[in-house]
Amino acid sequence: MELPAELLQTLRAHFGERLSQAASVRQQHGKDESHFSAFPPDAVLFARSTADVAFAVKECARFGVPVIAFGTGTSLEGHIAAIKGGVTIDLAGMNAILAVRPEDLDVTIQPGVTRKQLNEHLRDQGLFFPIDPGADASLGGMAATRASGTNAVRYGTMKDNVLGLEVVLADGSVIRTGGRARKSSAGYDLTRLMVGSEGTLGIITELTLKLHGVPEAISAATCPFPSVEAAIDTVILTIQSGIPIARVEFLDQTMIAAVNTYSKTDHQIAPTLFFEFHGSPASVAEQAERVASIAAEFGASGFQWATTTEERTRLWAARHTAYWAALALRPGAKAWTTDACVPISALARCLLETKADLDRSGLISALVGHVGDGNFHALVLVDPGNPAEVALAERLNQGIVARALALGGTCTGEHGIGMGKKDFLAAEAGGALSVMRAIKQALDPDGILNPGKIIKD
Amino acid sequence: MELPAELLQTLRAHFGERLSQAASVRQQHGKDESHFSAFPPDAVLFARSTADVAFAVKECARFGVPVIAFGTGTSLEGHIAAIKGGVTIDLAGMNAILAVRPEDLDVTIQPGVTRKQLNEHLRDQGLFFPIDPGADASLGGMAATRASGTNAVRYGTMKDNVLGLEVVLADGSVIRTGGRARKSSAGYDLTRLMVGSEGTLGIITELTLKLHGVPEAISAATCPFPSVEAAIDTVILTIQSGIPIARVEFLDQTMIAAVNTYSKTDHQIAPTLFFEFHGSPASVAEQAERVASIAAEFGASGFQWATTTEERTRLWAARHTAYWAALALRPGAKAWTTDACVPISALARCLLETKADLDRSGLISALVGHVGDGNFHALVLVDPGNPAEVALAERLNQGIVARALALGGTCTGEHGIGMGKKDFLAAEAGGALSVMRAIKQALDPDGILNPGKIIKD
Ligand SMILES: Cc1cc2nc3c(=O)[nH]c(=O)nc-3n(C[C@H](O)[C@H](O)[C@H](O)COP(=O)(O)OP(=O)(O)OC[C@H]3O[C@@H](n4cnc5c(N)ncnc54)[C@H](O)[C@@H]3O)c2cc1C
Ligand SMILES: Cc1cc2nc3c(=O)[nH]c(=O)nc-3n(C[C@H](O)[C@H](O)[C@H](O)COP(=O)(O)OP(=O)(O)OC[C@H]3O[C@@H](n4cnc5c(N)ncnc54)[C@H](O)[C@@H]3O)c2cc1C
Repeated sequence: MELPAELLQTLRAHFGERLSQAASVRQQHGKDESHFSAFPPDAVLFARSTADVAFAVKECARFGVPVIAFGTGTSLEGHIAAIKGGVTIDLAGMNAILAVRPEDLDVTIQPGVTRKQLNEHLRDQGLFFPIDPGADASLGGMAATRASGTNAVRYGTMKDNVLGLEVVLADGSVIRTGGRARKSSAGYDLTRLMVGSEGTLGIITELTLKLHGVPEAISAATCPFPSVEAAIDTVILTIQSGIPIARVEFLDQTMIAAVNTYSKTDHQIAPTLFFEFHGSPASVAEQAERVASIAAEFGASGFQWATTTEERTRLWAARHTAYWAALALRPGAKAWTTDACVPISALARCLLETKADLDRSGLISALVGHVGDGNFHALVLVDPGNPAEVALAERLNQGIVARALALGGTCTGEHGIGMGKKDFLAAEAGGALSVMRAIKQALDPDGILNPGKIIKD
Repeated sequence: MELPAELLQTLRAHFGERLSQAASVRQQHGKDESHFSAFPPDAVLFARSTADVAFAVKECARFGVPVIAFGTGTSLEGHIAAIKGGVTIDLAGMNAILAVRPEDLDVTIQPGVTRKQLNEHLRDQGLFFPIDPGADASLGGMAATRASGTNAVRYGTMKDNVLGLEVVLADGSVIRTGGRARKSSAGYDLTRLMVGSEGTLGIITELTLKLHGVPEAISAATCPFPSVEAAIDTVILTIQSGIPIARVEFLDQTMIAAVNTYSKTDHQIAPTLFFEFHGSPASVAEQAERVASIAAEFGASGFQWATTTEERTRLWAARHTAYWAALALRPGAKAWTTDACVPISALARCLLETKADLDRSGLISALVGHVGDGNFHALVLVDPGNPAEVALAERLNQGIVARALALGGTCTGEHGIGMGKKDFLAAEAGGALSVMRAIKQALDPDGILNPGKIIKD
């Protein structure tokens, strides 16, 4: 597709050097971290303000040209692919932290602020923002994918931590949703409608987020288990007992081995849980004791405590780089990442059956999961240039999704639909898909916002 | 309005005796607990199944006749008024508890189940559902108004505790939203869109809700304070300190006096907080100690602990009947209930300025609030037959809403918009109102679902 000359001229007059049509820039903005091939946009705009975004959307709307919001491009389902060409708006430059209000435990930021940037800014004030996808994603992108991470079992997901938004709609108009009150019954919940809408209903230009006080005491540990079942049963009983655990992450043997190599750690090669407890010193001690005794019931005893802040940071850095550690198992490969999430009682079965399938497939794969939420990822390593392998990974993924749905779960716990899971969403949502379609049609009648995502044609 | 004869015939053939046109039944379904006058529907249907609801909606849609969902009719903003006549569907008979799953801490129910019914059912299993409006409301109605109550500061509101819904749409089709996974990024969040939509986008015919384990230890107390400021400052510091308090409720002097009379209690007549702490015995003790020491900083010391379950139940029963206690201050009067909710740092100012306005007005009023969320209610007692009083209460309410909005808050923390707060919503939502209107139009193009609510014409 070529952009209309008049549009290009208008955009260039407004954005100047901040409009790029360089092949490398377009290529970089057409490809996320996943196995999907690139769909570069026709031009990339680097926005600095809400007015920039509103102007660009309004002009593109005039010509019916697609507009794709771009945060840091770490999404995993071809979310930012410019399937139908058009203009990508890169929001990374809108990265101002506009107001921190410790007295209300909230913050207002621009969408390009990343989770690490935010937490570095907050550290001195004894506050933190808990949602932490493995990548250092933008908060706008995280809201748009309804992201979560290792802390969700205690602190919820983006759905639970966004108080309000500023959004540029498909016609370039600007609205505000939500507010700063902790709760409200004022009309339809547009904030939650925008969260998870993957840039298909509007472009988020400002976010007000809940913050949390850094807990008085934090304690973290790793523990190897005699089997996958033993590890998962420990998680299930922990959750069922209502222990307010802050983090509980599962890594299978392959993943642990990969992490050891990549992060130069020396974990025992076994199905392993990473734990973290938050609270007062007494409450943390009590939680840790209760979980250790549950783990002991299932035959585990080797809790390794990370006592200093540095040890704890090392522990979680190793967890957060698990994706790249897995990739390093097969140089040149890409990861096909699954994202099933099931009710906790079905987790052991879902994970074990998945593992059996994966083992039978012959592809290298590693398992890692936010298991406290019933959510886990298989990272299946494929050579993207080998169609047979890609097809096999796709079949495995189909099996995993079908199993998750049969067990009352979802095809995606946190990554979203993008272009990769549209068929799965159709299966999962059933008749509700037509409601999603009606909403899309109502808010973006010409379909210019990130076309070809979420909803099947 | 008269119902079309053909519609009436079709409905009667299906519902038989479960269709009523008796004046008393219609009257009772046209009037909620509030000061609004009655708008009776033309007929009332008593539904027993999703199929009943789907049938009724489909038939009414065929004739463009309004359909109003009715739970227990305890809403406070004229929510269930049949402004344009039509058919009310009473869902109280759909009160089956379909499945309790202790292993996943969730439950599936029909919409007519009330909060007390649910908690009685769960008690033996060591589980509870935390959302508790003062009235024994239906869970369908609570979802539809995005209700909360005394536990929201710890457990969130209906928004946070609904996992999935079955909904009958405006054309009579039936969809499912959400599911049983604890989190999902699968497409638009239709669950949260339906929660708080007050029967204007669909009729909820089934809910899957999160449950919580009854805490190992529970401890409750009341404490009088030397002033309103002292009480509210205690709340603010408690919240800012991140103490995971389960309940913290404020009652002003008038309200305490009313409660004493109505519930035969003997609280000291002073601005008072009711507290509850949940957790392990050690954690409850620690929380209680920390809050007591904060209260002491602000000059309070008279903590009265409710140690037995009976004392605790009495304490909260007194809190839950505060509305009727206030009504009893002026026999024959109705309460005009305000519902401002502001960021916690603005709560003291908002409450004190409100109290000054109320005191100046000469009307009898009492204050009560879920102050941990920044939410409080003024119950202004008016003679509904006295237009001057009603106008005065209305002006007071306008002032309270304007103040809440100016402080970054909302016109309604938990009661919703109904017919009473449409202008306030327009002011609060600004341009976002047109997005709400577009969604309403997309999902209910003929405007048959609870017309005249939420969105101003
Ligand atoms: C190693 C690794 C680990 C990961 N771990 C996790 C994890 O633990 N949990 C998790 O949830 N995800 C995880 N992810 C996925 C990814 O990080 C998240 O989806 C993240 O939220 C994407 O943010 P982003 O800024 O990169 O968004 P992008 O990839 O740039 O965009 C994602 C989608 O959001 C839209 N979008 C972006 N910004 C905006 C905006 N301002 N307004 C509207 N729409 C916008 C885009 O159009 C696109 O549809 C992981 C990814 C990697 C590579
Ligand atoms: C004394 C008293 C104290 C209260 N305290 C609180 C409080 O602490 N917190 C709070 O949040 N509220 C409180 N309320 C308000 C009220 O209890 C809540 O709004 C409650 O959620 C209403 O539930 P209901 O079943 O009575 O709904 P109804 O009044 O019957 O209906 C309310 C709205 O929901 C719609 N609706 C009902 N059922 C359905 C359904 N199945 N599907 C779709 N739409 C439906 C109706 O059409 C209507 O618009 C209080 C009310 C009273 C009288």
